[in-house]
Amino acid sequence: MRYTVLGTGIVGRTMAAKLASLGHEVVVGTRDPEATLARVEPDAYGNPPFPQWRVANSQVGLEAFADAAAWGEVMVNTTSGAATLQALEAAGAANLAGKVLIDIANPLDFSQGMPPSLNPVNTDSLGEQVQRAFPEVKVVKTLNTMNCQVMVEPSRVVGEHSVFVSGDDTDAKKAVTELLVSFGWAEASVIDLGDITTARGTEMLLPIWLRLWGALGHADFNFHIAGARTGA
Amino acid sequence: MRYTVLGTGIVGRTMAAKLASLGHEVVVGTRDPEATLARVEPDAYGNPPFPQWRVANSQVGLEAFADAAAWGEVMVNTTSGAATLQALEAAGAANLAGKVLIDIANPLDFSQGMPPSLNPVNTDSLGEQVQRAFPEVKVVKTLNTMNCQVMVEPSRVVGEHSVFVSGDDTDAKKAVTELLVSFGWAEASVIDLGDITTARGTEMLLPIWLRLWGALGHADFNFHIAGARTGA
Repeated sequence: MRYTVLGTGIVGRTMAAKLASLGHEVVVGTRDPEATLARVEPDAYGNPPFPQWRVANSQVGLEAFADAAAWGEVMVNTTSGAATLQALEAAGAANLAGKVLIDIANPLDFSQGMPPSLNPVNTDSLGEQVQRAFPEVKVVKTLNTMNCQVMVEPSRVVGEHSVFVSGDDTDAKKAVTELLVSFGWAEASVIDLGDITTARGTEMLLPIWLRLWGALGHADFNFHIAGARTGA
Repeated sequence: MRYTVLGTGIVGRTMAAKLASLGHEVVVGTRDPEATLARVEPDAYGNPPFPQWRVANSQVGLEAFADAAAWGEVMVNTTSGAATLQALEAAGAANLAGKVLIDIANPLDFSQGMPPSLNPVNTDSLGEQVQRAFPEVKVVKTLNTMNCQVMVEPSRVVGEHSVFVSGDDTDAKKAVTELLVSFGWAEASVIDLGDITTARGTEMLLPIWLRLWGALGHADFNFHIAGARTGA
């Protein structure tokens, strides 16, 4: 399968490397590939610049958003929430139409100070905004409730834990669930919350996730829904 | 210990009955005790009217908010989120001052349609509003992330699961943790998130809780933080 990962940050790199390791063809989409390849400074989180990561992941392509989106069969949105709609505009509705878009972004809003709040929130969500802006795209919100290392290596967290899927298209959610299983997720760990409006619920997990990260001092934790299955 | 449970709904009744069963003295506070005792119709959720519940729980007192608050040593707020500040005003700052207030309420807002949204949310929380309005009270937000039957009987949910505490007063959180242990919670299940601003995180679990309730078809589930403890 040809996967287009939108975004060059740590989430995008982690997803791209995992997908490539599973034998998929992967291209990362960015606003300006030349600018991305010219970076020499660590990012705001202290991650090495993209070109350095690329050395160890040379099988992953890098293209402008539109070219990357036109090429891929499945889209993975790992851009920052504040940049998502603009990135998808640049990718182009025609290049995205009819495709599954796995939306991992969270609409973190740093303008109200730390810890970040969310925008949109409560009566709307980024997942819904994306679905409304690109009605031809099959948006599946998932994986946005955990650290990116846990996304692709669930065994980092000891014990049972959950991953949520939200989306309007049942077949798209089924395909994404199969991808999650290929990442190492037990099928029983995948909880289908319902349509894309349920993305409000998963995006609104971010505030407690951030506080838990602070309280626990590490990111190898995750939400588990105890009692989700009969006799579980 | 003398516990005052503010609110006559299903959460208040469940808490009052549990506290009484553990040998505590319990008074339920309500706006107008005569009106509460005159109810003959089930409430909006189909629960029997308060007087019917009282027949089986005659050891639990019923008083107006102010009398109930003046009498109790520990306060338990189970009023609806929209009514909480008004109820606490009626209880009276002087009657509450210096006491621990266990805040179980969630600021559900039904004015934006179903499912309910939250108000306040995101950059504020009901827990913080209560603490700001009553600075002499030791507010501990807890138990607001689960069904009330699970609050007082955690073994209803199979497997490990978590209960969060948020509050500015360390001793108050310690006392509430001891109460939770007396309810049947393992001490290791209690996660101290930090100060009262972390109540934003637990209140914002409500949207996904409501969706999970719909998706699972039952309320005997709960959040568990997998990987919260080293080697857990």
